[in-house]
Formats: sequence, structure tokens, C-alpha cells
Amino acid sequence: MQYPQPISKLIEGFMRLPGIGPKTAARLAFYVLDMKEDDVLDFAKALVNAKRELTYCSVCHHITDTDPCRICDDNSRDQSMICVVQEAKDVIAMEKMREYGGLYHVLHGSISPVDGIGPEDIFIPDLLKRLQDDQVQELIIATNPNIEGEATAMYISRLIKPTGMKVTRLAHGLPVGGDLEYADEVTLSKAIEGRREI
Amino acid sequence: MQYPQPISKLIEGFMRLPGIGPKTAARLAFYVLDMKEDDVLDFAKALVNAKRELTYCSVCHHITDTDPCRICDDNSRDQSMICVVQEAKDVIAMEKMREYGGLYHVLHGSISPVDGIGPEDIFIPDLLKRLQDDQVQELIIATNPNIEGEATAMYISRLIKPTGMKVTRLAHGLPVGGDLEYADEVTLSKAIEGRREI
Repeated sequence: MQYPQPISKLIEGFMRLPGIGPKTAARLAFYVLDMKEDDVLDFAKALVNAKRELTYCSVCHHITDTDPCRICDDNSRDQSMICVVQEAKDVIAMEKMREYGGLYHVLHGSISPVDGIGPEDIFIPDLLKRLQDDQVQELIIATNPNIEGEATAMYISRLIKPTGMKVTRLAHGLPVGGDLEYADEVTLSKAIEGRREI
Repeated sequence: MQYPQPISKLIEGFMRLPGIGPKTAARLAFYVLDMKEDDVLDFAKALVNAKRELTYCSVCHHITDTDPCRICDDNSRDQSMICVVQEAKDVIAMEKMREYGGLYHVLHGSISPVDGIGPEDIFIPDLLKRLQDDQVQELIIATNPNIEGEATAMYISRLIKPTGMKVTRLAHGLPVGGDLEYADEVTLSKAIEGRREI
């Protein structure tokens, strides 16, 4: 005998999620058996609703339950700035900071020739279309500080700069609260390169 | 703006599971958004079905979708042995070994005075009732090798031994494939105590 069929189905379900192996999946499945039925129903509904009700904003491609999304639709935000990020999660991170009041553009990936992902596979053509609108004055490129993110930033910057638009990139340097001792060489060299007078 | 409501509900759902904090929950929720709708539906159904269809065997208290469970109902199994374990998961672990052909009894916990759990809060009275059946000749106590598990084993053994029934406990010792160097002192002392001639 192995697991009864309903629980092995549930274990399979958990195993489809990233970073969850057979042991964790079994632990979670047994935990679900001990949960209140209402809580399990709520969780199951949340799964289905998240998948069904959420869609991507047709303007900025951020996840949303309205179209255009609340950020694109908010006239109090600065329409002259667009911050380009790789993933919807990055918008959430930026919004948590509560200091940026402009718009976003979610690429849903980065240029990565190794994986066969070119500029037209992520939302770069869409970004160019948005920039034809005269309102936009600055493009802040906030792709990840790794090889693919840098390549994507360079690509976009080279396309846009000739049009005379201001293109900026988030600063690289030591993370606040970090220890200089533990910083890697590349970060440290970026921190020196970007040093500022105080 | 924070997360749109459907996704924050899903994140809350994941956070109710053990060992899943806010960051992992967000990562899993975003992963769900990128899954195929059918897969999400299957997962949601598996959650509800596991909760609804699974129950506990009225004889051995193992999880099951039939009552009595397939193990209790299997006449080819040795009816003279009962292996006492703490959790349903332990039955699965024993069954994976494919060497034990007897019956089980799942206590659903262990005696723990600190947490206010006494013998009548776990299925010990039920076990005593089962033992009145003359068929049972050996009780193998396979509770966990920790303080609560040992206490539970001692308690059961002291209750049963006077009746003349054979009561055994799983052997303690070095785990196979382990390194003697890394064994803790208690395990090592148990391994010496239980040494055998070869």
C-alpha cells in the first residue's frame, strides 16, 4: 500500500509548485488533512479565483483585476516617468518603497540569448509604442542587476537614447545594512565607481 | 497599492501552511498565476477531495478512503502483530519498507505532560480494547525516538506486559549510511548498549 489516492493526488499537486519536493509535499498534504474544512475550501477558492480573476494590464502588463490596472488608471501619478521592470513582483517591491510616483512597464522576462529569448519575446516592442506618447520624459530601467538584466538595460537604453529621452538605471552599490566585508568584488567595484561626495 | 485582492487572498492561503512565510507564499502565488488553468483547477480539487474523502479508519485510525482501511481489511496480513505508531505518516514509512506484514495502530500523538496530553487524549484506550482480541500476540512499539515517544512507549509497555503479551520496541542505533563521527552521544550509547555478535 502507498498513500490513499486522494492524498497522493494532493501530494502531486503540491509537488508541481517550485521548490517543493516529495517530502515537503507529503508534509503539507498531511497538514491539509488536519485543517478545518472551511479553511481548505477558502484556500482552494483562492487558488481558482487568483487564476481566473487576475489578468495582465493591457498598458503596462502588470498583474491586475481591472484593465487598465490601478496604477495606469491613477491620474495623480506622474505620467512623465516609466519604470521598466522584469516581473510583476518587482512592481510590488517598488510600490512598497512608497517613493516612486510614476508609471511602470513590466517586461515579463529579460533578453537571454542562451535561452533563446530576444527583445521581441518580452514586452520591449510594446514599451517603444508607449514611448511615442510625448508625455513620457524619463525611462528608469530597473531590470535585475545580473547579466540578463544588464543586457536588457543596455539594449533598451541604446534603442531609446538616440531619441533624446532621458534614460536612467537604478544605482548599484553596497546594500544598506550590509557588511562591506561580505560584499562581492563586482558590487564593491560598482560602489567605488558610483561614489558620491558627502 | 499592494497586491490585487485575489492574489493577496492566495498568499494568505499559502501562509497558513507550515513552514511557508510571506516571501515563499508570494513566490508560490505568482507561480500559480503562470500555471495552466487546468492544473490549478486540479490542484484546488485535490485539496478539497483530500479533505472530504479521507477519513480515519475506525479500527487502526490510519487515514483511509475506505472504512476499515485497506490494511485492516487485508486478510493476508499477519493478524497477530500490531505496530503502534504516532502518526499516519509513520504507517506510510513502515509500508515503504515492504518488510512488515502485520497490522498498525495510529495513536495520533504521544504522551506529553508539558502540553497537557495524557494517555486518554491519544488512542491508547482504543489500543487496549483491540488487544482484548486473542489473535494479537506481539505489540511492536514504533513511537518516535525522543522524550515523548519514549515516555509513550514505556507507558504502553507497562500496561500491557503484565498480561503476558510480547511487547517490543524498534532498535536504536547508528543510522545506516551515517557517519559514526557525526552520531550524537545518546545514539552512540544506545548503539553500544544494543550491540550484537556478528
